[in-house]
Amino acid sequence: MRSSAIGTVLSAAVLCVTPVMVRAQTTLAQKLGYPATAKLLIVHADDIGVSRSQNVASEKGFASGAVTSGSVMVPCPWFPDFAAYYREHPGLDVGIHITLTAEWDYYKWGGVSPAGEIPSLLDEYGHFYPTAEAAAQHAVPAEVEKEVRAQIQRAIALGIKPSHLDTHMGTILVTPQLAPIYLKLGKEFGLPLLLPREWLQTVPADQRDALAAQYVLLDGLYMIEAADSTKTWPLRYEEMIAQMGPGLNELIVHLALDDTEMQAVTVNHPDFGAAWRQRDLDFVTSPAFKQMLKAHDITLVSWGQIRDLMRRP
Amino acid sequence: MRSSAIGTVLSAAVLCVTPVMVRAQTTLAQKLGYPATAKLLIVHADDIGVSRSQNVASEKGFASGAVTSGSVMVPCPWFPDFAAYYREHPGLDVGIHITLTAEWDYYKWGGVSPAGEIPSLLDEYGHFYPTAEAAAQHAVPAEVEKEVRAQIQRAIALGIKPSHLDTHMGTILVTPQLAPIYLKLGKEFGLPLLLPREWLQTVPADQRDALAAQYVLLDGLYMIEAADSTKTWPLRYEEMIAQMGPGLNELIVHLALDDTEMQAVTVNHPDFGAAWRQRDLDFVTSPAFKQMLKAHDITLVSWGQIRDLMRRP
Repeated sequence: MRSSAIGTVLSAAVLCVTPVMVRAQTTLAQKLGYPATAKLLIVHADDIGVSRSQNVASEKGFASGAVTSGSVMVPCPWFPDFAAYYREHPGLDVGIHITLTAEWDYYKWGGVSPAGEIPSLLDEYGHFYPTAEAAAQHAVPAEVEKEVRAQIQRAIALGIKPSHLDTHMGTILVTPQLAPIYLKLGKEFGLPLLLPREWLQTVPADQRDALAAQYVLLDGLYMIEAADSTKTWPLRYEEMIAQMGPGLNELIVHLALDDTEMQAVTVNHPDFGAAWRQRDLDFVTSPAFKQMLKAHDITLVSWGQIRDLMRRP
Repeated sequence: MRSSAIGTVLSAAVLCVTPVMVRAQTTLAQKLGYPATAKLLIVHADDIGVSRSQNVASEKGFASGAVTSGSVMVPCPWFPDFAAYYREHPGLDVGIHITLTAEWDYYKWGGVSPAGEIPSLLDEYGHFYPTAEAAAQHAVPAEVEKEVRAQIQRAIALGIKPSHLDTHMGTILVTPQLAPIYLKLGKEFGLPLLLPREWLQTVPADQRDALAAQYVLLDGLYMIEAADSTKTWPLRYEEMIAQMGPGLNELIVHLALDDTEMQAVTVNHPDFGAAWRQRDLDFVTSPAFKQMLKAHDITLVSWGQIRDLMRRP
């Protein structure tokens, strides 16, 4: 094809944009090759890299086939260990769990950037602040952008091909002055973002349509949030799965072993503690979880499928 | 007593120096209240803070009474966890394991100082170099001094009253351009140092007497150094104990559990690996170790006793 012909095709494509938009929208599910009203679900392992225990359990989650995506905390002590595992399992669907907080009592980390370059993100010991609120209160946006870009680049340098970006404790997404950095870095690296459709309600009304047109949004985001008894764990998950509707859903799980290390990481925190994470691991690797997904006609997908769709010419 | 009388006493003391030095020297053992030729032994747990596993096992070592001293790696991820334990057990004898290297394959740490202030100590990822040789090759002494002082101050800030200084992988002691920093910081903080008498042979001959007069030296330093079978572990330790002579001896042990975490910390390194450290723990907490010490007439002491002796007016 001559270059002038390519120009003609491109012009025709541009001219076609309006009529195509008027037609019934092709759903994300259809673009991914599924029926228009498919209930898509990403089963997502959070906090990979925080500890050896979290790595071992998350690897089990991936190996069981139940977990379709996960994300890594690049500044944490056990990130290089998981990166080594990833290099031996390059098909894993792994994104960057943007980390700007260090929430445990005695187990801490700071940034990937030199401390002198991100002073607003660090406490007197060079550790991140423990809560999203404290981080948001101190954070200078330019330093956040530098640190987050450094986390993504560090992961890439250690061999990871990120499938998406998401956010530890929500910090970069729920802080209005930081969210634009998250959106910008998604574009810069060509990566989809964890962005719940509900989040649109927090931005000015006149920006919502443009954002909805530019970003893939999650129609449903599910996670066990408060401590509950072991007995009701599968029941609570079944309630969530029953609620999932057509479109893109994500179920966040936190997988770790209830061992010496993880008990000490999460000391004083039964919520999201070691026993909690072991229950999550036991549940997602159980036949009951598979049966629930099947019974509710859930289609498992990964962030990588969405990234690849975004990058299609 | 009037001040002039104090002056007289001090003058008399100064005048007495020469005759006292000519008499048979009071041994360190006597100064500590033991017979002149007592075989003193510090049983020392190295590498505390490197992992949760190391902390748990070292705490067991202290609790068993077999370990008399230990030292902490302040830049490591699990140092704050051990510091919290120490604050609940303030009688523990704990020094600073000056750390300028990060030797494991996938489990890394950098300095306590902001990375921008100690660039000569860090690799491209902000981690210490893996060997004493690589650290020595890159290290700018002023940056070493800044980082080591920061490690000591961080430990003190987290509540530790250090009993001594020693050195991870020997870096600061075996590197001629760094050893003066070690000696200087011992004086500055009023702390005894791990200094084997043999080390004197590495300094110019005309400095040896002055150093021997100023510092408490170890007459014997013992450690299992090369991989050996489980069967011979107690035998090897018995050989060492049998060799110990009068004066100050130190036996360095590395205590950890042979668990998921420690196996991954020490992956690819059977020497000083997880199983090795579990064997050390099993040995030092065994009745056999106590019996050997008794059979060879060993007197257990701690670094804190030597520190307190140094600080006596």
